[in-house]
Amino acid sequence: MSSNVNVEIISIGNELLIGKILNTNAHWLAKRITSLGLSVRRITVIGDDLAEISSAIRDSILRRPAFIITTGGLGPTFDDKTLEGVAIATNRDLEENKEALEMIRRKYEEYVAEGLMESVELTQYRVKMARLPKGAKPLPNPLGTAPGVLLEHGGVTLIMLPGVPEEMKAIFEESVLPLLRKAAGGMIFYEASLEVAGLYESDLAPLIEEVMRENPYVYIKSHPKVSEKVRRIELHLSTTCSDERTAKQRIERAVMQISSLISERGGRIQPMQI
Amino acid sequence: MSSNVNVEIISIGNELLIGKILNTNAHWLAKRITSLGLSVRRITVIGDDLAEISSAIRDSILRRPAFIITTGGLGPTFDDKTLEGVAIATNRDLEENKEALEMIRRKYEEYVAEGLMESVELTQYRVKMARLPKGAKPLPNPLGTAPGVLLEHGGVTLIMLPGVPEEMKAIFEESVLPLLRKAAGGMIFYEASLEVAGLYESDLAPLIEEVMRENPYVYIKSHPKVSEKVRRIELHLSTTCSDERTAKQRIERAVMQISSLISERGGRIQPMQI
Repeated sequence: MSSNVNVEIISIGNELLIGKILNTNAHWLAKRITSLGLSVRRITVIGDDLAEISSAIRDSILRRPAFIITTGGLGPTFDDKTLEGVAIATNRDLEENKEALEMIRRKYEEYVAEGLMESVELTQYRVKMARLPKGAKPLPNPLGTAPGVLLEHGGVTLIMLPGVPEEMKAIFEESVLPLLRKAAGGMIFYEASLEVAGLYESDLAPLIEEVMRENPYVYIKSHPKVSEKVRRIELHLSTTCSDERTAKQRIERAVMQISSLISERGGRIQPMQI
Repeated sequence: MSSNVNVEIISIGNELLIGKILNTNAHWLAKRITSLGLSVRRITVIGDDLAEISSAIRDSILRRPAFIITTGGLGPTFDDKTLEGVAIATNRDLEENKEALEMIRRKYEEYVAEGLMESVELTQYRVKMARLPKGAKPLPNPLGTAPGVLLEHGGVTLIMLPGVPEEMKAIFEESVLPLLRKAAGGMIFYEASLEVAGLYESDLAPLIEEVMRENPYVYIKSHPKVSEKVRRIELHLSTTCSDERTAKQRIERAVMQISSLISERGGRIQPMQI
């Protein structure tokens, strides 16, 4: 958690709040963003409610992350309210964006050409996907109709992605990745895990503190498996750094130190696959 | 989303922000709380950072949900900071809670009796789990050492649960469920899903609007599968209501109406298992 390029993720959709689906989008984004050397500071999940969306985005902007990435709420139905929420939060009007409308029209033309659809009529529901906050830029959606949206606002880059995982990932890889990579400035995230048996988490606690004091750039977290009683604990070590060799050396040094302390206390260790 | 007993979930742990694990705790809680007839309004995920924890809790209290449920950060290690964050957010001191300390002592005595451990010495790391915000009450943890914690603060009930899923669920079922059930006052959540083929989401949009206008207590949401191009869309209908018969009637009426509109437009429908 040591990179200072901060990102917030905002996941939008009632289906997440009723527990209908697992938030795999936020998980995928968090992993991907971390691996690029940036820090995800917060994930907020809200429903398809305009007041909730605009207030969550406004609050997030006030915390000044470098990037805010939203998922969900870009489609054609009445409850797709993300862009309206962004417009309110950033005090902008929504306006029909020609480039976005052109992207959408071309999609429907493809569908007609493939015989999937009879007409490309741009109904109000289809045009809705092209109504962006003033100053925003559409990001091509290689797999679906609703474009992603990018908006620079007061030093924060807002990126709105669809909720359908395949579309979200495709736009991320094509249009968002280069921006994040540039912002990370060559930082990388490096991690390792150990499985510890034979010690309680409460007995590991002072050892972790000691090794973290000695290795200020390494973060160590213990994850008890099932319950403390079973005494199988995963120790996860991570660092963010500008070159891989240093990152690796840092982690290896901390692994050696904690391993020897654990052995001294009668614990057993084995490396884990991440 | 029509119940007015609101709940916020706050998930605490760096492992969620680096994408190391999926937030299955929030998913399980959201599903369980919704099925009890309450509304989850927001899920916030933050790291093991005292300033982040206290500000997320303070902001949540200001939104005045009936309940705030946190997971994670109750254990013995240095980065278990949830109770300290709650203390700051609610302007209370942390103090050693006798009942909590007794629960923890009894756990370690059990471990010694089972031959899993040699001594019950209450180190500072173990005592830490019994340091609760003033006025809080420990909730027994049938599976692990760190008790859950309950705190009433200015009309909001804060409930802090451990991050280990089995412990979180056990405390929820034993100590939290009765409180939520009482607060819900007999409300129940009822849902149904249909799979629609042969129509685009943008063509379904006006049909959903029409049926929702006719059925003000039913919420309908479309979930395109993979991409709009594939034209398989899940329609999810839900309602919250004080008796099951009415809930069922509401959903059945809306299902019939939307089904006949979809058929008229050439779409095909089949019921789905939830």
